[in-house]
Amino acid sequence: MLSFESDYIQGAHEKILERLAETNREPLSGYGNDKYCESAKEKIRRACECEDADIFFLVGGTQTNQVVISSMLKSYEGVIAAQTGHVSVHEAGAIEHSGHKVLTLMGHEGKIEVEELSAYLKAYWSDASYEHMVFPGMVYISHPTEYGTLYTEEELSSISEVCRAYHIPLFLDGARLGYGLMSRETDVTLSKIAHYCDVFYIGGTKVGALCGEAVVFPKKNMPPHFLTMAKQKGALLAKGRLLGVQFDTLFTDELYFRISAHAIGMAEKVKELFREKNKRFFIESPTNQQFIVLENEELTRLKEHVRFDIWEKFDDTHTVVRFATSWATGEEDVEALRQLIQ
Amino acid sequence: MLSFESDYIQGAHEKILERLAETNREPLSGYGNDKYCESAKEKIRRACECEDADIFFLVGGTQTNQVVISSMLKSYEGVIAAQTGHVSVHEAGAIEHSGHKVLTLMGHEGKIEVEELSAYLKAYWSDASYEHMVFPGMVYISHPTEYGTLYTEEELSSISEVCRAYHIPLFLDGARLGYGLMSRETDVTLSKIAHYCDVFYIGGTKVGALCGEAVVFPKKNMPPHFLTMAKQKGALLAKGRLLGVQFDTLFTDELYFRISAHAIGMAEKVKELFREKNKRFFIESPTNQQFIVLENEELTRLKEHVRFDIWEKFDDTHTVVRFATSWATGEEDVEALRQLIQ
Amino acid sequence: MLSFESDYIQGAHEKILERLAETNREPLSGYGNDKYCESAKEKIRRACECEDADIFFLVGGTQTNQVVISSMLKSYEGVIAAQTGHVSVHEAGAIEHSGHKVLTLMGHEGKIEVEELSAYLKAYWSDASYEHMVFPGMVYISHPTEYGTLYTEEELSSISEVCRAYHIPLFLDGARLGYGLMSRETDVTLSKIAHYCDVFYIGGTKVGALCGEAVVFPKKNMPPHFLTMAKQKGALLAKGRLLGVQFDTLFTDELYFRISAHAIGMAEKVKELFREKNKRFFIESPTNQQFIVLENEELTRLKEHVRFDIWEKFDDTHTVVRFATSWATGEEDVEALRQLIQ
Amino acid sequence: MLSFESDYIQGAHEKILERLAETNREPLSGYGNDKYCESAKEKIRRACECEDADIFFLVGGTQTNQVVISSMLKSYEGVIAAQTGHVSVHEAGAIEHSGHKVLTLMGHEGKIEVEELSAYLKAYWSDASYEHMVFPGMVYISHPTEYGTLYTEEELSSISEVCRAYHIPLFLDGARLGYGLMSRETDVTLSKIAHYCDVFYIGGTKVGALCGEAVVFPKKNMPPHFLTMAKQKGALLAKGRLLGVQFDTLFTDELYFRISAHAIGMAEKVKELFREKNKRFFIESPTNQQFIVLENEELTRLKEHVRFDIWEKFDDTHTVVRFATSWATGEEDVEALRQLIQ
Repeated sequence: MLSFESDYIQGAHEKILERLAETNREPLSGYGNDKYCESAKEKIRRACECEDADIFFLVGGTQTNQVVISSMLKSYEGVIAAQTGHVSVHEAGAIEHSGHKVLTLMGHEGKIEVEELSAYLKAYWSDASYEHMVFPGMVYISHPTEYGTLYTEEELSSISEVCRAYHIPLFLDGARLGYGLMSRETDVTLSKIAHYCDVFYIGGTKVGALCGEAVVFPKKNMPPHFLTMAKQKGALLAKGRLLGVQFDTLFTDELYFRISAHAIGMAEKVKELFREKNKRFFIESPTNQQFIVLENEELTRLKEHVRFDIWEKFDDTHTVVRFATSWATGEEDVEALRQLIQ
Repeated sequence: MLSFESDYIQGAHEKILERLAETNREPLSGYGNDKYCESAKEKIRRACECEDADIFFLVGGTQTNQVVISSMLKSYEGVIAAQTGHVSVHEAGAIEHSGHKVLTLMGHEGKIEVEELSAYLKAYWSDASYEHMVFPGMVYISHPTEYGTLYTEEELSSISEVCRAYHIPLFLDGARLGYGLMSRETDVTLSKIAHYCDVFYIGGTKVGALCGEAVVFPKKNMPPHFLTMAKQKGALLAKGRLLGVQFDTLFTDELYFRISAHAIGMAEKVKELFREKNKRFFIESPTNQQFIVLENEELTRLKEHVRFDIWEKFDDTHTVVRFATSWATGEEDVEALRQLIQ
Repeated sequence: MLSFESDYIQGAHEKILERLAETNREPLSGYGNDKYCESAKEKIRRACECEDADIFFLVGGTQTNQVVISSMLKSYEGVIAAQTGHVSVHEAGAIEHSGHKVLTLMGHEGKIEVEELSAYLKAYWSDASYEHMVFPGMVYISHPTEYGTLYTEEELSSISEVCRAYHIPLFLDGARLGYGLMSRETDVTLSKIAHYCDVFYIGGTKVGALCGEAVVFPKKNMPPHFLTMAKQKGALLAKGRLLGVQFDTLFTDELYFRISAHAIGMAEKVKELFREKNKRFFIESPTNQQFIVLENEELTRLKEHVRFDIWEKFDDTHTVVRFATSWATGEEDVEALRQLIQ
Repeated sequence: MLSFESDYIQGAHEKILERLAETNREPLSGYGNDKYCESAKEKIRRACECEDADIFFLVGGTQTNQVVISSMLKSYEGVIAAQTGHVSVHEAGAIEHSGHKVLTLMGHEGKIEVEELSAYLKAYWSDASYEHMVFPGMVYISHPTEYGTLYTEEELSSISEVCRAYHIPLFLDGARLGYGLMSRETDVTLSKIAHYCDVFYIGGTKVGALCGEAVVFPKKNMPPHFLTMAKQKGALLAKGRLLGVQFDTLFTDELYFRISAHAIGMAEKVKELFREKNKRFFIESPTNQQFIVLENEELTRLKEHVRFDIWEKFDDTHTVVRFATSWATGEEDVEALRQLIQ
């Protein structure tokens, strides 16, 4: 069945499968100590224009958020995030499970606002009983956000500035980073992210890999013994090659960027298609996730022919739904969708 | 370079890569809700002769031990294991990190002895201050053990009996289960394991998969909301298909057993080869890991030509080393090794 | 200096010190296994009209919240509380430190509203991805709240009903319970609390004891091995007698209620006094904490003569402050305060 | 009934109760911010001959071990202790509950041996897979030990030296410190402890206080935000005065040392008494705990007249029992005991 359910419904880009097969029989040491991991790291450093970066490969998004956040926070610190942030809502409490509070700011189409962040930090540090509260120890943003929106460079820069003023790291969750970077409406590049953030990850799972996220510490600031902390959380992959080969492939010949750009192209077509049919957009998303307000009847009809995500109730007769494109979405999928929408 | 370093130095059995490629473009729901996961579970149930079994796929061994143990223990309980058990020593404290003590018994070539287990439990429950100590809440064994040894059916049965008498589950870590089942010196089968244990896992990472372990709860005893507990620990894979397709392949046409038997065949040849050269065996291992006592000079010489694992110091002039075979070991590898040993 | 800073600025009611001295040399077993603990429990059961209640003494409030909440929740569950609740804000993340998320509802003068609770639970359970979120596993309310306000019996009853409909326990934090029970504007009694709640605690620290909180499980529902879970969190007092003697004294001749009523009488006078001077009340509190909006200049002047708590900024020229009375507040203290207010 | 059950069967030294009563009505700020805490700290600094020491008061022993150990370790580190150490066995897994493994060395009458410590650390750091194991991050010793034995200055000094060579702190659990310092067979003083250790605590609960332990960081090395970490574990007492007044009293006019010396005097008499009756000693203890091997029949008879602690089975007809003296033991108690022993 036709599906725009998410960006992780298909396997991996064929080039990745090909490389896995080609390298399959080479005997390689485990736990990331192999030449493909090394090569992938080197290519990512170049792509980030950040030759000193420490890089670590993990398997999935929630795992990455948990390992990064808990390894960088002191026990008495929490992480600031938008109320709608993935770590706040959709990770089954993985951050709290590791002992840390998620301190929430209002989300604005998935984003936090620098004034509110600044006000929060100022209020915290002027509270006489701050020692009895959770210290704000990090800022978490997702880019693209869970609503498909993007920070501008100016926003990123000003959030970064506040973080530095308060000496707390800025962490960017890039589970869908490729789709953000290849959006037609962004001035944010990978090297700018490496400049403004203290840690971020380049999502593989949702951008063409079978699994895998590349955590980047751009400032020689990877916490000591990060490998042990990952292992302690069950996050260290024995066959590290699986991640190394995938990221090495994604960062060869700009594959990561090319397949992301393809997904954006498909999303633009989907957007156009809904616009032509005069559908209402819940949010103006410049990335691969499109949020549409559907009449409940149309939703019911459509569901028989195409899979998509039910996002949330809009009102008594309408529902917000999400259509996601990916590296794997074909022109023919979009055409098939066009035939279905009335 | 020739390598007997471990059983996870190569990728995956080619049949697995093939199936991943064949199914690659099918749109499938995430988190294990796909037909390949279902099919794999069904095949595993049949292989275990246990049609009611609950099955859950996880990515790696330490992760599996952590998720299974912490989801089955009450907060005031610990897990009993051999002092040499993987959870006791080589998981960077993952069990303690999840809040639980590993209560250790003396290891006997990697195994626990039922009399010592029984004595431990009896002593605990007759201690007047037992409420101030960690409750023994589970027994963990590995099979094969970290030393390549195997429990006999009688041993398994008597340990199981003790566990049931004390109402605590018996958990078998089967990271290398295939190699245990296909050993020429075992009377333990998969269905017997399902009979005697309360939970166990069938290792994929070390037996032909890129990654993946299949946790089996044979008695309809999977803890409620196991999926959420896995997610909370960052252990829920978005593209569950990656695990489903692999285990579906491994349990089609007995691939899992055939490749395990192959590794055993290779290990027997390696054993023979060392025996011919009059090398001393550190332990009599009937599985794919062979532990040899080498003179330090020979060790130094060999290391230039073949990779193997340094296990531990034996005495001032000798070292225990490990040679591991796997599904991927070729006859030519063993022959090459033969040429190297003097 | 005159002080209305809080209700824990003095030691203990003299009757308590007297009993500690009288019983001081009796040799008694540790950890709560003594006759004073037994006697105190029996008296509390009678006061609660709940002869089956399990009772456990702990040392302080945050400790009690942490031990109770974490011992009653499953690892995948969180606790629902008002955004202003003590567990949400002022316990340095003790709940998250024990692995559980605090799920917040809007606070209404410190209280949660049953409709919002009900809507939250309904929305959670109708969300298709509820398994990827934190399960609501308990409701936490404080009574009196952090703002001195009280639930009515009707409110308590309806919140209790919702909890039972969803099979989750209702936990009432009674750090200041005496002051709530003795308010002139309440229809809630101790036995009604025992009826509507699944667990609650009777605060000692703020109501005349040196330290100590009495946790009550009114429905034979104390989690098994609660003592061990308390010990595991460092919360088991060696000399349990210290808590036993104190609560035994507080529940002899209604001391707990009498000293609470005294504090309420003093609070009424303080309220009157501020009303006479036409001060603005931030909240209408019927208990021992009074929240007044002071002009910043007056605040500065007053601070030189009397200690009180700075609550929060009201506007650029005004500040909310708190004056707390307690079992130890004297008529002369109130008179002295009256002289100071202009 | 006559009791030698433990050193925490009575309340507090009368001088402490007196001071609590005298200071009872003074309004003092909470959480340790009061003049009695300040004064107590100053007196302890002087007693330790360590004027820079940071001092923090906590309520009980297990709590103190948990807060100190978990606040000083990195998440990937564990604490080295004797297999018989309190943290290893009798704290219900409090250390593991806070995420850290207790790495055990053989206990020698409760003590660790420096050669074994040194060998352990050397082996760990030469293990090629040390990153997959728990890092040794601290050494824990108890003094007196759980068996009443004491380290000599030489032993303490050499253990300290090893710790410094490996850059890990040495933590001394002084739950019964007074009884160690006042032993007739020790060359260890409080200032030597402050010299050799990186952190230690002076036990109050077992040495004359109602509750309370004074943690001393002699080298300006208290972890930042220790108060918040204590609060996060429910270990911060609201009425900090309760601890301040007690320790201020204990360290006025050498009360702590005088009552400890008294207990030692009583223990010497008890020891003599058993020696006269030709009883066998399980261990030669120079402190307030005496371990005797009793015939089971005599044990049964004695139990009807005096309370003491059953330690462990010795052989089929004998049992090890413990008689503890304390600050509160009277000459008449010892005489009464003498009459009972045959």
